[in-house]
Amino acid sequence: MNNSPVPVNIADKLAQFSDLWSQKKIAQLNDYEVKLAKLKGEFVWHKHDDTDELFLVISGRLTLQLRDGDVTLGPGELYVVPQGVEHCPVADEETAILLFEPVGTSNTGDAGGSRTKAPEILS
Amino acid sequence: MNNSPVPVNIADKLAQFSDLWSQKKIAQLNDYEVKLAKLKGEFVWHKHDDTDELFLVISGRLTLQLRDGDVTLGPGELYVVPQGVEHCPVADEETAILLFEPVGTSNTGDAGGSRTKAPEILS
Repeated sequence: MNNSPVPVNIADKLAQFSDLWSQKKIAQLNDYEVKLAKLKGEFVWHKHDDTDELFLVISGRLTLQLRDGDVTLGPGELYVVPQGVEHCPVADEETAILLFEPVGTSNTGDAGGSRTKAPEILS
Repeated sequence: MNNSPVPVNIADKLAQFSDLWSQKKIAQLNDYEVKLAKLKGEFVWHKHDDTDELFLVISGRLTLQLRDGDVTLGPGELYVVPQGVEHCPVADEETAILLFEPVGTSNTGDAGGSRTKAPEILS
């Protein structure tokens, strides 16, 4: 997918799905992947013991609840949750985000549970 | 910088500089960095022997000249130039991009020369 000679249009990719809390892979850079997701409501508290995690908001508004306080991101804003830092994403309105992290990073990190879901590949 | 409790606003960061072809680091994720740059005109043909390189256009229009043909990106479009693939960015109008690649990746790759410049850190 990352060898394709055509650009990846984020808006076009977002138009291809509507399910919430389901990561969609749109590109790969070395052993990292670029994913999109649509969020609404609250996720689960978790952390990633082996990696930082980058959130970039495309539309809507995302709050990353952290144990030391919240960080709220609007469109065009990004935040890197450091490795090992507990966080819980929450979005009052439907929010589209871009994620950047290593291939194989679990969406629920150390928490596991019913909301764990591997990313899907968008054609 | 990636441990800051405040989000990184891409537009605010872009407003902090006007020099062309000078990468500005705005965040770090593990041993990868997120950088911004403003481009106009043509760069130099080069490749990165050790890494892929991600280009995301924020504003303007970027053409990545490749030996097999060109890829043109508008706002919200990204492309990953694979490791070892020669490319030469060119922008007819001033264009703002976000780059994602490993810390230490040279802007001119294997070509070197007078346009080689280490990234600066935006406060």
